[in-house]
Amino acid sequence: MDRIPILKLGAALIVTIQVDMHDRLAMALEEDLTSRIVATGARGVLLEISALDIVDSFIGRMLDNIAAISRILDADTVVVGMRPAVAITLVELGLTLTGIKTALNLERGMALIQPRLDRDDSTGPENARARHRD
Amino acid sequence: MDRIPILKLGAALIVTIQVDMHDRLAMALEEDLTSRIVATGARGVLLEISALDIVDSFIGRMLDNIAAISRILDADTVVVGMRPAVAITLVELGLTLTGIKTALNLERGMALIQPRLDRDDSTGPENARARHRD
Repeated sequence: MDRIPILKLGAALIVTIQVDMHDRLAMALEEDLTSRIVATGARGVLLEISALDIVDSFIGRMLDNIAAISRILDADTVVVGMRPAVAITLVELGLTLTGIKTALNLERGMALIQPRLDRDDSTGPENARARHRD
Repeated sequence: MDRIPILKLGAALIVTIQVDMHDRLAMALEEDLTSRIVATGARGVLLEISALDIVDSFIGRMLDNIAAISRILDADTVVVGMRPAVAITLVELGLTLTGIKTALNLERGMALIQPRLDRDDSTGPENARARHRD
């Protein structure tokens, strides 16, 4: 596989990382995410990593990069679904993911970026389409 | 990887298929999905297959199986993100995915199962579970 799918849902982009990341795949993901954030005007990126049972400094750096890119493009990054062992490894590697929000699962991650979406909602009429729930 | 992650979002379960499916992985996915539908009371299963550029009769059968299992457990199955070439291959293989809903992307897939969720909402989840499909 040469591309990791990026799923748009409302103002969030969901990325599920299931395969071993290598240099080229990580770079492609960063590029794809950047253009999707700009194209869709997404306000949040949810990185789901429950399939990863090993996280090394390479993955840690990739998460950092994605968070930094998203921040510049005014989108929040939330890492969701991290396994306990991965959390331990990250801390042992000295990667504390500063500047990246984390949530136990996708639903909580969505809830984390939701207040921001709601705020956008009330300030811009162009975003009002997200509101007609009743 | 031995397990494909199943993400819960509201009353929907989202599965992104990114890797080559083999027998054991497909069986594991069917089992995991079954238990997650029962455990979460999910009303819809969204299978995202945009990463697949080849679909053979094995995958076609797996999609059929998942749809059949979900139906028995009173959940809808929506296949989303299918590539044009995959659609052509499926038809050439004689797999027309009867009984499976399809949608161009995750958002439309969510919208497809949403009316059902809303209907459940208004009648109360405890009654909705016992109700027959109309």
